[in-house]
Amino acid sequence: MNLVIDVGNTFIKIGVFDESDLVYKKTIEPSDFIEEIDIAHRDFSSIRQAIVSSVANLDDDAITYLKKLFSTLVVDHHLDMPFKNLYETPETLGIDRLALVAAAVDQFPEKNVLVIDAGTCITYEFKNSKEEYLGGAIAPGIRLRYHSLNNYTAKLPLLEPKIPINHIGKSTNEAIHSGVVQGILYEINGVIEEYCNIYPDLTVILTGGDAHFLSKRLKNSIFATSNFLLEGLNHILVFNNNK
Amino acid sequence: MNLVIDVGNTFIKIGVFDESDLVYKKTIEPSDFIEEIDIAHRDFSSIRQAIVSSVANLDDDAITYLKKLFSTLVVDHHLDMPFKNLYETPETLGIDRLALVAAAVDQFPEKNVLVIDAGTCITYEFKNSKEEYLGGAIAPGIRLRYHSLNNYTAKLPLLEPKIPINHIGKSTNEAIHSGVVQGILYEINGVIEEYCNIYPDLTVILTGGDAHFLSKRLKNSIFATSNFLLEGLNHILVFNNNK
Repeated sequence: MNLVIDVGNTFIKIGVFDESDLVYKKTIEPSDFIEEIDIAHRDFSSIRQAIVSSVANLDDDAITYLKKLFSTLVVDHHLDMPFKNLYETPETLGIDRLALVAAAVDQFPEKNVLVIDAGTCITYEFKNSKEEYLGGAIAPGIRLRYHSLNNYTAKLPLLEPKIPINHIGKSTNEAIHSGVVQGILYEINGVIEEYCNIYPDLTVILTGGDAHFLSKRLKNSIFATSNFLLEGLNHILVFNNNK
Repeated sequence: MNLVIDVGNTFIKIGVFDESDLVYKKTIEPSDFIEEIDIAHRDFSSIRQAIVSSVANLDDDAITYLKKLFSTLVVDHHLDMPFKNLYETPETLGIDRLALVAAAVDQFPEKNVLVIDAGTCITYEFKNSKEEYLGGAIAPGIRLRYHSLNNYTAKLPLLEPKIPINHIGKSTNEAIHSGVVQGILYEINGVIEEYCNIYPDLTVILTGGDAHFLSKRLKNSIFATSNFLLEGLNHILVFNNNK
């Protein structure tokens, strides 16, 4: 069994894989890290290996602790990937984005795939049918947009995300919901259409914490899944074992 | 002559109108307010009246100072407007948004008009051909999106706005430019198309500090102008004088 750990900008996700099956998943606060690793270690005694991807700063003590319990792989830009990376600045490419591409390569081989991860940020990753990663885009995520409207203006409230009733917001709250959520939907649809103009056979994956919230309102046919990043990390681990 | 003052979330804009002609315009820091008012007062001795719109918190001393120099109208939600306001929460409607609608009513009477103001926030306002204001949307502006990516993540840099080279960002900087700027362009085009489905004769105005930056990349035909808000404030002043 493999333990996969995704340290994001807001939360940490941990998953336990039995070969390619995700048998346990939990989203945790960074402060609960050691405690939750202990729980996984206790409940799944067959875990032999761990893989860690971190876009935030996971402290060295946490890594040291993991390495004591398991054979642990920390993903960095020197690690071999199951695809050709054509990104021009690989040293600044988020580790989470590498994992999403690895999942696309594993699950949709020889396809042109756009992976949209709607979390703290909304990231777009494109890999083509030749298993080449070309890059993508990074935009603020839903909650980040709501927060920024409140933080950078004197009078706008902080709201919980909500699908707007109408594109014409008839109150300040509805105007914000329309500007943020409807805006993101236009944006995602616009990106998908742009890629489809070049790759008409495009496969679109929507993942991340807000995938479910957004998926119902997207007009293009998409494949929504919440575990894509963890699956990608597991694939990177398996790929490096089998080299 | 009229002095019009727009206190925004980031800067203050002042303008001097000779009837409907804007003869002087300056964007200033809030800390320079009194000094800049003195300059306008000295250079344009014919100014008799002032109108102030504030979405931020302009201190009472500044208002008191203005009232000593000019007959001063401070826009609030009780002031009569040259349109019918159908917004359901008029008490939380930004004063700047009222001014944009007033300009649309003055300059495009009996037209269906969407005003897009790209500043700290990107606001969308719609008034129909019956001079009814229906509401709109509020989304984070360009700089706010760049700032939020840097502030809410551990590793993304703060960049100056730039039109992306390609929608597939091949480096982290290009991915951010694509996510922010291309994202906003998709969003604006999406909003315009949605309104055009209902109002095929729609007139679209793009204004605000980032109007020029964005206008060249928008595929729909739009009318870009930087003084729309100041013109709207002047119209509110004239309208209230002539009642």
